[in-house]
Amino acid sequence: MAIELDLDSVEALALRRLCEAGASLSQAAPVARSIRAAERDGVRSHGLMYLPVYVEHLACGKVDGNAVPVLDRPRAGAVTVDAAHGFAHPAIDLGLPVLLQAAHDCGIAAMTLRRSYNCGVLGHHAERIAEAGLIGLCFTHAPASIAPVGGRLPVIGTNPFALAVPDGAGGARFVLDQSASVVAKSEVILRSRRGEAIPEGWALDAEGRPTRDAAAALKGSMLPAGGAKGFGTGLLVEVLASALAGAIPSREASPFSGSVGGPPATGQCFLAIDPAAFAEGFVDRIAALANAIELQDGARLPGARRLAARARIDSSGVRLDRDLADRLGLHVQSD
Amino acid sequence: MAIELDLDSVEALALRRLCEAGASLSQAAPVARSIRAAERDGVRSHGLMYLPVYVEHLACGKVDGNAVPVLDRPRAGAVTVDAAHGFAHPAIDLGLPVLLQAAHDCGIAAMTLRRSYNCGVLGHHAERIAEAGLIGLCFTHAPASIAPVGGRLPVIGTNPFALAVPDGAGGARFVLDQSASVVAKSEVILRSRRGEAIPEGWALDAEGRPTRDAAAALKGSMLPAGGAKGFGTGLLVEVLASALAGAIPSREASPFSGSVGGPPATGQCFLAIDPAAFAEGFVDRIAALANAIELQDGARLPGARRLAARARIDSSGVRLDRDLADRLGLHVQSD
Repeated sequence: MAIELDLDSVEALALRRLCEAGASLSQAAPVARSIRAAERDGVRSHGLMYLPVYVEHLACGKVDGNAVPVLDRPRAGAVTVDAAHGFAHPAIDLGLPVLLQAAHDCGIAAMTLRRSYNCGVLGHHAERIAEAGLIGLCFTHAPASIAPVGGRLPVIGTNPFALAVPDGAGGARFVLDQSASVVAKSEVILRSRRGEAIPEGWALDAEGRPTRDAAAALKGSMLPAGGAKGFGTGLLVEVLASALAGAIPSREASPFSGSVGGPPATGQCFLAIDPAAFAEGFVDRIAALANAIELQDGARLPGARRLAARARIDSSGVRLDRDLADRLGLHVQSD
Repeated sequence: MAIELDLDSVEALALRRLCEAGASLSQAAPVARSIRAAERDGVRSHGLMYLPVYVEHLACGKVDGNAVPVLDRPRAGAVTVDAAHGFAHPAIDLGLPVLLQAAHDCGIAAMTLRRSYNCGVLGHHAERIAEAGLIGLCFTHAPASIAPVGGRLPVIGTNPFALAVPDGAGGARFVLDQSASVVAKSEVILRSRRGEAIPEGWALDAEGRPTRDAAAALKGSMLPAGGAKGFGTGLLVEVLASALAGAIPSREASPFSGSVGGPPATGQCFLAIDPAAFAEGFVDRIAALANAIELQDGARLPGARRLAARARIDSSGVRLDRDLADRLGLHVQSD
């Protein structure tokens, strides 16, 4: 039997559980909103499925539920936020309005976050920048899982970047959100739990050899998409989200899952660019570019799948299977 | 029989041929320097091999040899240059000092170029930014050759990006320079001329089907590295180097080879970021990251091959085969 929840209930449930686990309202509320947004777009891995992990991390001290992020604007186009080992979302919420103002002032601005944490669906942060009429280009890193081509020791995480492009009407014309690896590491974890093999080309074992054994892959490394070029894109993310931000290197970050290792202390870097500062007609050029993609049979714009889910789930709400409902304590909720 | 030239002679030859073809000294000199730099790093495709193309493009009007680029700084962190259908290099030289100053002022700055042209080795521009102690992140687009995954009409060019990271001592710790396609289009052109087949996975024919026929590939599209993720990275480049810059879309740009179609009118976008504005210790973190890559057996830092060539060619000079020497008119040069 499945349980159905509308999005308001998703957010309220997440908020309650986070506060019960010791998070302050200012730490919990932005995370609860992010869980709602993930469920709304059908990104279930960062929706209610992640809530038990957040709760565990509040309990074990990977996240400080009472952290107070600290903002600085050392130069006109530079914004920094110390997330103080709290959740990433409240630190981002603190800095974002300042980033947007700085981008309007200077034409371009950058915000870096340090002593931060997994920021959930990266594309959602980029999309908020696009909703302000700016190009959003966001980078976040993660505990190391990808080795350089030819090597065997992971140096960078699956290190995604996201790009959101304003549509001139308060939204994003499209949102790109992609990691550096062939597949998400969570896919390998899932296969490992089920005792299933993984396809060739996903991962290497600890000796740097191709493997189809999911457990061996988790002790080895994830393969980058497009070989050296995927590693290169992940390296760009590492430079901006970790080294520039003054965050921990991916090589030393504690895992985003489980309870050992203390705060991950990872970082983010978000760029905001005001197209009006550079040339007129940006929105028209983007509309023509997007049309040239989505009018082709068989092709689709980046983010199209999430938008389709959004249209559906906004009205239908989400269904939770019994197992997740149990883990969320919904069997004792009668309201 | 081969002809040997030291790098001074390479630059002098390039300068002479460009001026003979009608370029002003201010247009020709930066291009001649770029040819020297390409030969120095063993990037022969953008060295003297490209000189006959530059000369042809001056003759046919694809490049205006007397163009005077125009600079503007509409906001504190925004620099724009109208290359005025001249070469890209003098326009970049005009804007670069202003970009560097803007990045120091604001922490980050962006320079866009429009009505521009092929800018040669993209990594060299990023490297100059790193030599000023800043992170250089450069984007340039090209006539369309890559279709969106699932489609068959090219929408973006091979659209490379380059990243150069300062080493704290006036140089770059590493330089990444990669296109969005599996291989450079020039590789397919070469095979087509020789009547050779291309490997699977390089390109599609005009119907969007995989092909090993180089001629059919040139009428079709180049495959992006890593599938949709390579296309995504190329799309990021398109947004910044074309749409933001106010340049022509890749879909409408005239070819960088041959003499038809008038000026390509393509664009570039260069970002410069001052690490000191965001956190202390950047150079140490980059050194540790670079070491974690290059100390692994079998792995190497991005740009390592070019650096090795540089060390060698700085002293040895370059060798030209008879065919290229003839095309450069070296058989009539007795000096």
